[in-house]
Amino acid sequence: MEKINAIIQQIPELSSEKMLLVSNRIDQLIKPVGSLGMLEQLAVKLAGIQASEKPQIGKKAVLVMAGDHGIVDEGVAISPKMITRLQSINMTMGITGVCAFSKINGADVFVYDIGIEGEVDCKQIIDKKVRNGTANFLKEFAMTREEAIRSIEAGIEAANEAIDQGYQLLAVGEMGIGNTTPASAITAVLCGLDPEKVTGLGANLPEERLPLKIEVIRKAIERHQPDKNDAIDVLAKVGGLEIGAMAGVMLGAAARRVPVVLDGFISLSSALIAVSLAPSCIDYLLPSHRSVEIGSIEASSKLGLNPPLDLSMRLGEGSGAVLMFGILDASLAMLNHMITFEEAGFSV
Amino acid sequence: MEKINAIIQQIPELSSEKMLLVSNRIDQLIKPVGSLGMLEQLAVKLAGIQASEKPQIGKKAVLVMAGDHGIVDEGVAISPKMITRLQSINMTMGITGVCAFSKINGADVFVYDIGIEGEVDCKQIIDKKVRNGTANFLKEFAMTREEAIRSIEAGIEAANEAIDQGYQLLAVGEMGIGNTTPASAITAVLCGLDPEKVTGLGANLPEERLPLKIEVIRKAIERHQPDKNDAIDVLAKVGGLEIGAMAGVMLGAAARRVPVVLDGFISLSSALIAVSLAPSCIDYLLPSHRSVEIGSIEASSKLGLNPPLDLSMRLGEGSGAVLMFGILDASLAMLNHMITFEEAGFSV
Repeated sequence: MEKINAIIQQIPELSSEKMLLVSNRIDQLIKPVGSLGMLEQLAVKLAGIQASEKPQIGKKAVLVMAGDHGIVDEGVAISPKMITRLQSINMTMGITGVCAFSKINGADVFVYDIGIEGEVDCKQIIDKKVRNGTANFLKEFAMTREEAIRSIEAGIEAANEAIDQGYQLLAVGEMGIGNTTPASAITAVLCGLDPEKVTGLGANLPEERLPLKIEVIRKAIERHQPDKNDAIDVLAKVGGLEIGAMAGVMLGAAARRVPVVLDGFISLSSALIAVSLAPSCIDYLLPSHRSVEIGSIEASSKLGLNPPLDLSMRLGEGSGAVLMFGILDASLAMLNHMITFEEAGFSV
Repeated sequence: MEKINAIIQQIPELSSEKMLLVSNRIDQLIKPVGSLGMLEQLAVKLAGIQASEKPQIGKKAVLVMAGDHGIVDEGVAISPKMITRLQSINMTMGITGVCAFSKINGADVFVYDIGIEGEVDCKQIIDKKVRNGTANFLKEFAMTREEAIRSIEAGIEAANEAIDQGYQLLAVGEMGIGNTTPASAITAVLCGLDPEKVTGLGANLPEERLPLKIEVIRKAIERHQPDKNDAIDVLAKVGGLEIGAMAGVMLGAAARRVPVVLDGFISLSSALIAVSLAPSCIDYLLPSHRSVEIGSIEASSKLGLNPPLDLSMRLGEGSGAVLMFGILDASLAMLNHMITFEEAGFSV
């Protein structure tokens, strides 16, 4: 935990000086004041994050964290666990959703094994395995406290390695059959809500199995009594390895002034953990799309995030986050390609 | 009107055969069925529009229609009319909002003079001037019926010229100081609503002048009694030249199986006219963003369109429409770069 605490201590405040400079320039661009709405806010935020009056987006990466879930044994997902491994391998081959969208947005995809069950025979998957999938958290804790800490540290390492390679903008994604169940459990605990309010069908669970899924989560919370004031405890008792790793990416990136684009519900549950550990981390998180998974509404609201894309998506992988890269590019295109009224020779 | 009627007759039905083929393939891609939401629907729609099971987006263009408005004399806008001309020229120099976003989305911007007041000394602006701005429609009709028809024909010509140059995807944009006033008037008439429900502040009109703007629209409608069953009558009496031209782009593109991406409120008022003239035109219109201008909500609802981007923008120019190009690219990247479960060797 010392490592995580050290990273949290390093998270800087946004540069209000650079934000003001950029905000003033935006107000002078040849357009009605405020008329580019969220694009203006994003450019100002990027200036604050990078502490630069000329924020830039160079290399972009999606860090996809993969892990399996013992809770699948309770019937909360329709796909078998082996899909986690197979689809993770597919991601290294460029043939999944996040890969397709990364290609057209100039982003690179990196896949990490945080807790895929069994051996993964694929050199392109970066090995940061903490354990062979979580335990069935209806019966025991999903993982030990030490493993939860280690999953977060794995994410911090991944962020640092990507940033060391020159990536200036990160997105998080995940692959983990069954992971809407721990995401709902985490959201229920950290938002103080009944599981019914934050539990949906995930990847096409038949409607009639939803009550079972909710009941599994409710019982697990009752049994383990995760402490909502101790996010590591929540992650260990009802969480997931890839969920911890995404939280780690957020903390690690924030400590180095690198923005992280969130994806759908699973990544929001990671953000709840990251922000619970380090409230200032929120300044470095950018929302992307409104997942149709019900828990994402409560999680976004708790985090105060307002995702600008509404495409009824629920794939995960980071597929929605990557679409946000184009919007961020637009916010900087506004700064870099538009000129001010004065520069245009208007006297207004 | 014969020319417009001939174009309307040419608008084909979407190809349900190609839509079914693409829909079936999407259901087999390596992702949970339906999990890419609106991206799936867009790909299917593009297949129907292009009548191709491999829809493509090649060259993209934004057609920006410019015109002035006599109603500005009533104090419904804070900028002087001359800004229409100056900003239209700026657009040809690549320094405005729509230009910035077009650069990063690989789109070309074309600017048309449909009714800029006075002489326009800029060779890059394509001359299709119908008249020197509209008349003050509180006092007289905005234009004659013949001029309204001519403004639509100008848009049809613009669409045809762009398509002849190889553009496969069009967006509409506009520049016209004061044009939220005719857009609100058109929307009020064609949606059958009181002007108060569809009139906002446009480009930063001071809040205290909003009642005046609403009253101007209400009086003009009472005085001229535009016929809601005759869209040309509505356009002539309380419309705008660039609004007619954008409606023409929609009709002209639909007749040639080319999709048109809508922008904000002004373009929605054009769409109301286009769809009133030719209901089947709606199949070729793609929404982009939710403008904060209040009338856009009613207009979108009337048209049955659900814009996926929510960026609190209200610039116009086609700036929001261009951002949608990236989303459309993503929908085709899904088709072109993802593979099916069978192709991936899964036996599911």
